[in-house]
Amino acid sequence: MRNIKVTIEYDGTGYHGFQNQNNPALPTVQGVMEELLSGLSGEQATIIGASRTDAGVHARGQVFNFRTNWTIPVDKLPLATNSGGIPPDIVVRAAAEVPLDFHAQFDATAKTYTYTIYNARIPSAFHHRYAYFVPQRLRVESMAEALKGVVGTHDFAAFKAVGSTVKSNTRTIFESGLEQQGPLIIIKLRGNGFLYNMVRIIAGTVLEVGKGKLKPEDIPEIIASGNRIMAGPTAPPQGLCLEYIEYPD
Amino acid sequence: MRNIKVTIEYDGTGYHGFQNQNNPALPTVQGVMEELLSGLSGEQATIIGASRTDAGVHARGQVFNFRTNWTIPVDKLPLATNSGGIPPDIVVRAAAEVPLDFHAQFDATAKTYTYTIYNARIPSAFHHRYAYFVPQRLRVESMAEALKGVVGTHDFAAFKAVGSTVKSNTRTIFESGLEQQGPLIIIKLRGNGFLYNMVRIIAGTVLEVGKGKLKPEDIPEIIASGNRIMAGPTAPPQGLCLEYIEYPD
Repeated sequence: MRNIKVTIEYDGTGYHGFQNQNNPALPTVQGVMEELLSGLSGEQATIIGASRTDAGVHARGQVFNFRTNWTIPVDKLPLATNSGGIPPDIVVRAAAEVPLDFHAQFDATAKTYTYTIYNARIPSAFHHRYAYFVPQRLRVESMAEALKGVVGTHDFAAFKAVGSTVKSNTRTIFESGLEQQGPLIIIKLRGNGFLYNMVRIIAGTVLEVGKGKLKPEDIPEIIASGNRIMAGPTAPPQGLCLEYIEYPD
Repeated sequence: MRNIKVTIEYDGTGYHGFQNQNNPALPTVQGVMEELLSGLSGEQATIIGASRTDAGVHARGQVFNFRTNWTIPVDKLPLATNSGGIPPDIVVRAAAEVPLDFHAQFDATAKTYTYTIYNARIPSAFHHRYAYFVPQRLRVESMAEALKGVVGTHDFAAFKAVGSTVKSNTRTIFESGLEQQGPLIIIKLRGNGFLYNMVRIIAGTVLEVGKGKLKPEDIPEIIASGNRIMAGPTAPPQGLCLEYIEYPD
């Protein structure tokens, strides 16, 4: 028995999220990978994902692990899977053998997400799957300023989807940033973990700052309020991308 | 009655090409635009496209014209169509009123196409719709050199899909170029017109040069042969994009 860590990239447009759904007819990234690995290895594969990305959310560096008796050399696994009947919107980027007790979700020390906005007068046929189209003129400097306000260790209850329950709402955001590439505005957040919908609510709140409806200095007050209603709307899923996940060593 | 020239962008992945098919159940860009414009204008719209892009081929600057009694100001047409129930993989970029005798296909003086190759060891979940994945190491300098060989006025019979009949196989390629952007190799061709599949056959032939199966100096001989069998295979549709179309003035 060994434990294999796999890094995958996917275009989430066609999936009902990473994680298997109660309705097995709904395609998920986990479902595709488990079926593929089961077929190739000849034994039922159960994968443990690091992050439960939602329907329509993308990943450049999602990580999962699975325990198997499959004897494939790990350096052959990406090619074997990528040419083994995987749909083209999922790609295996890397694989490594890890200690048997490695757990992709619990061992993660940091996750980095981006949220991409397509800011132009006219939408784009090529970016609509990967970015949130916002035609209004945005105060980009204010958005960058607002993003500084989320850095640090805070109770992020105000930035958590209503109805989601976890033991603690405290998370640490190590760094935040904003980059412009032509019409694209890319928000970047690196933290030790994120509450349900937290990145999308931060993006939606920062967009309210961009539109002038909130000010950068409102962010600390919103955090302090612990009140979801004070933050902006949840930005739609297609702008979100799980970039990479960090582990010890 | 007036004549309106419209510039559109589309992700061709979900369409059976630009032009309406014999089977009306097959979605086409023309079909979508005619239905949309008919609904908005209240009269049956018939559009004349500049280029018949194939299934899976994209466009950043396809042009069509249509005659109509619709009184909408042309500067309002892009917003009216883009928010009027158009699918997100088609975007109206611009509209202009043109003389009644303007014909999007016959009046075009130049067309520019790109063909994009994704050259890396591992495929990309995000580029697979828009680029042809080629994992082999490519001789990019030789490909750029080969592309110079197609410039000029030639009989391009060797670069024409078998079975396609036109009055003349003579076309002029004004310029060719090759650009690298990380793993992307972008071939660019600007000409007064292209035979059926011509850009994709040129791309396929240039790829044979990249793989060392042909040499740049073979291109003039292939052109001179007039024999389709001498050129490389037809590169797949997803790498092709109609960039823009030029008209007098």
